[in-house]
Amino acid sequence: MEAKKYAAELIGTFWLTFAGCGSAVIAAAFPQVGIGLLGVSLTFGLSVVTMAYAIGHISGCHLNPAVTVGLTAGRRFPAGQVLPYVIAQVVGAVAAAALLYVIASGAPGFDLGKGFASNGYGAHSPGQYDMVVCFITEVVMTAMFLFIIMGATHGKAPAGFAPLAIGLTLTMIHLVSIPVTNTSVNPARSTGPALFVGGWALGQLWLFWVAPLIGGVLGGVVYRWLSEEPTGIVEGVKRA
Amino acid sequence: MEAKKYAAELIGTFWLTFAGCGSAVIAAAFPQVGIGLLGVSLTFGLSVVTMAYAIGHISGCHLNPAVTVGLTAGRRFPAGQVLPYVIAQVVGAVAAAALLYVIASGAPGFDLGKGFASNGYGAHSPGQYDMVVCFITEVVMTAMFLFIIMGATHGKAPAGFAPLAIGLTLTMIHLVSIPVTNTSVNPARSTGPALFVGGWALGQLWLFWVAPLIGGVLGGVVYRWLSEEPTGIVEGVKRA
Amino acid sequence: MEAKKYAAELIGTFWLTFAGCGSAVIAAAFPQVGIGLLGVSLTFGLSVVTMAYAIGHISGCHLNPAVTVGLTAGRRFPAGQVLPYVIAQVVGAVAAAALLYVIASGAPGFDLGKGFASNGYGAHSPGQYDMVVCFITEVVMTAMFLFIIMGATHGKAPAGFAPLAIGLTLTMIHLVSIPVTNTSVNPARSTGPALFVGGWALGQLWLFWVAPLIGGVLGGVVYRWLSEEPTGIVEGVKRA
Amino acid sequence: MEAKKYAAELIGTFWLTFAGCGSAVIAAAFPQVGIGLLGVSLTFGLSVVTMAYAIGHISGCHLNPAVTVGLTAGRRFPAGQVLPYVIAQVVGAVAAAALLYVIASGAPGFDLGKGFASNGYGAHSPGQYDMVVCFITEVVMTAMFLFIIMGATHGKAPAGFAPLAIGLTLTMIHLVSIPVTNTSVNPARSTGPALFVGGWALGQLWLFWVAPLIGGVLGGVVYRWLSEEPTGIVEGVKRA
Repeated sequence: MEAKKYAAELIGTFWLTFAGCGSAVIAAAFPQVGIGLLGVSLTFGLSVVTMAYAIGHISGCHLNPAVTVGLTAGRRFPAGQVLPYVIAQVVGAVAAAALLYVIASGAPGFDLGKGFASNGYGAHSPGQYDMVVCFITEVVMTAMFLFIIMGATHGKAPAGFAPLAIGLTLTMIHLVSIPVTNTSVNPARSTGPALFVGGWALGQLWLFWVAPLIGGVLGGVVYRWLSEEPTGIVEGVKRA
Repeated sequence: MEAKKYAAELIGTFWLTFAGCGSAVIAAAFPQVGIGLLGVSLTFGLSVVTMAYAIGHISGCHLNPAVTVGLTAGRRFPAGQVLPYVIAQVVGAVAAAALLYVIASGAPGFDLGKGFASNGYGAHSPGQYDMVVCFITEVVMTAMFLFIIMGATHGKAPAGFAPLAIGLTLTMIHLVSIPVTNTSVNPARSTGPALFVGGWALGQLWLFWVAPLIGGVLGGVVYRWLSEEPTGIVEGVKRA
Repeated sequence: MEAKKYAAELIGTFWLTFAGCGSAVIAAAFPQVGIGLLGVSLTFGLSVVTMAYAIGHISGCHLNPAVTVGLTAGRRFPAGQVLPYVIAQVVGAVAAAALLYVIASGAPGFDLGKGFASNGYGAHSPGQYDMVVCFITEVVMTAMFLFIIMGATHGKAPAGFAPLAIGLTLTMIHLVSIPVTNTSVNPARSTGPALFVGGWALGQLWLFWVAPLIGGVLGGVVYRWLSEEPTGIVEGVKRA
Repeated sequence: MEAKKYAAELIGTFWLTFAGCGSAVIAAAFPQVGIGLLGVSLTFGLSVVTMAYAIGHISGCHLNPAVTVGLTAGRRFPAGQVLPYVIAQVVGAVAAAALLYVIASGAPGFDLGKGFASNGYGAHSPGQYDMVVCFITEVVMTAMFLFIIMGATHGKAPAGFAPLAIGLTLTMIHLVSIPVTNTSVNPARSTGPALFVGGWALGQLWLFWVAPLIGGVLGGVVYRWLSEEPTGIVEGVKRA
């Protein structure tokens, strides 16, 4: 039943957005013992590791419109399923942001003005990176993400390790680029908090759809080209 | 022999509570080089990773009444074994708190009044989160925990990786929610330190039994519904 | 050839001591961006993870007299090989301390008086924990270490994951107990730096031989008792 | 087709250098919540973990001239392929440094004078370690790196785990030695940033070619000697 796949994507993207953005809003800057950007990076990545083991066999565990579109470009996913997957992902992310809003506002000192884990560029980039650079960063990071997703799920890659490889790639991406854009590479994850912050966050949301989707297609296409024709040596190893 | 399973649960829950709460009490705020909430989150999660590889084949390595009850709700564990499992888990956690008390009180400046890693809400929430929000957080986190446990141990998930997926989920849960409730999702782990702190910690202990148990049942039931009927495409992949 | 096993143990224990103690001496308290106790804990643990994949098939990758003795108590290792293994481990650890001394003294401000990653109790415990408590901590931690080693290498545990489970246990042990004894659970690792610090470090070295060896035997014996007779339910799962 | 292997090495070394050096330049010292040397160490290591799962089956995923040369010395890689591999790696690293320059200079306060993640010794060592000690450190670290690479990819090591073992070794190496040389063990990674910093960075670049290459050969040769003749006991275990 297709509905169960969509439910899995919804719940999985809920988990990624709730835990990832939650760690940023609730725990990153907790006085003295806060988890910092390192802890936030781990949380985003581990949400994919954990969900991929739990629902990978149900829906493929994309949790991200750029992944769904990139895998379609790489000929790994049927185009006819893109729209319902993306809708399920966005609904999951918005539900996550809603729940996070309820929880975070249950503590003194909560302030949506601190950004609520929204993505941004220019004046709203955590490190004040300008728009062009933010755009490039999101394109490159999403392209590398899809490249590794395509590779780690390739038939010749070691079985069972893809969730680790993919989730830890998302961790790495965050370790580098939170200061640039607060790290999206995932339009659904960006949409959730932006709806609550409104204003500038909604105004800048276009970049976090356009750049990741371009990057996702790039990564999917490049890997497909690279792996199309296995080399003789690799085949030899397989045969041995 | 059933007694060996109970012994395994007792020792495993001892390890989770001793190491997890120990890292919080002894090392989290050590001057200058303390491990912070990130280190505590890793310790709790790795206690499950490591024990699951060591005793998973003996008892299933629940180490948590909410896991035992949730797996029963998800029809993975026999109801008749719930009570002895829960008793073994609570005994292990109390023994862990006792040993931790002995060790921690062997240093100058030890003070039970700092909380001794107890869970709390409202005035006793690390970030002063109100009771309703703490209740919701514990329900949602435990539900997601059980959802992922059910999924990662499903017959179609990659074999051998479940301990990593489950333990790292516990790490993620801590990375987000230590500031909210000091993170329980485990009534046994909450009971150990509360017995030593007494007073407010015992008075608030009910929440850390009720909310995780509700969440555990929710997660077990939702995943069971989701996975009941495998989709044609997934079966196709398996057959190919 | 037996000599190659001893060479593997020597090189492996060199790696554990050089990297683990090196991270503490060189990087833990580096200004502003130091890795802290969390980074030191990861380094010690990962030294076992990485070496176990590299030389596990040669020598078993003990890297620790308490592991060798504990596995012998648990009837997993021949008693006749204990002495050469322990000698190889101690030689590797001393060589590591010597190299670390050369490197660390190549920077301005190096001072052996800061402890050179030696283990200690009482006035030489990082957190001033008294001797009895330090002794108990080393016994319990080593016992749990051996318990998990025995379990993760059991025939019914998932194949290939033991190095991860064992190394991450060593990480956890450090995350909790560096403030107590600077964490030994390994007499060879303790002996290396103590020879260079001399004085109090040599005077306290006995504890870091006696306590880990007692703990190792305890852990090996308890796990052996626990796993002797597999339960019917586990066998049922295996057969299904 | 050989060209696809070279393309894989180019993209992989781009990823290692862009993400690793990017985490250092962009995120390590971000105010209050920076990822520190621990985060940088994780990023470098995870770049190898993730790429090895993605392209290991295409090119072997060396991403490092010292690895390519060391594996050749250990008789695991054909000498005739060394030059094109090394060229592809250096091109990838230079492209990474160029992109990182574009991105990092898109924020206020960017300053090449802070080092741009270049490697250095003496006055340009982060902790002011003298040249001889820096040389020794790079030799030893690269030798241990190759030793573990040879071991983890040995036919008797558990299948599929080599990328984890190898990447986490690179993380460990960074956890120890960033204060010494800013950690190279990889001439390609060193060359990228040095071309942009120029001056002292180019003048010191020789050490980060010579020392890692010597270390790589050492590690490859020692492991080959160690594993040449499997012991009877290990064979017995395999047969059982």
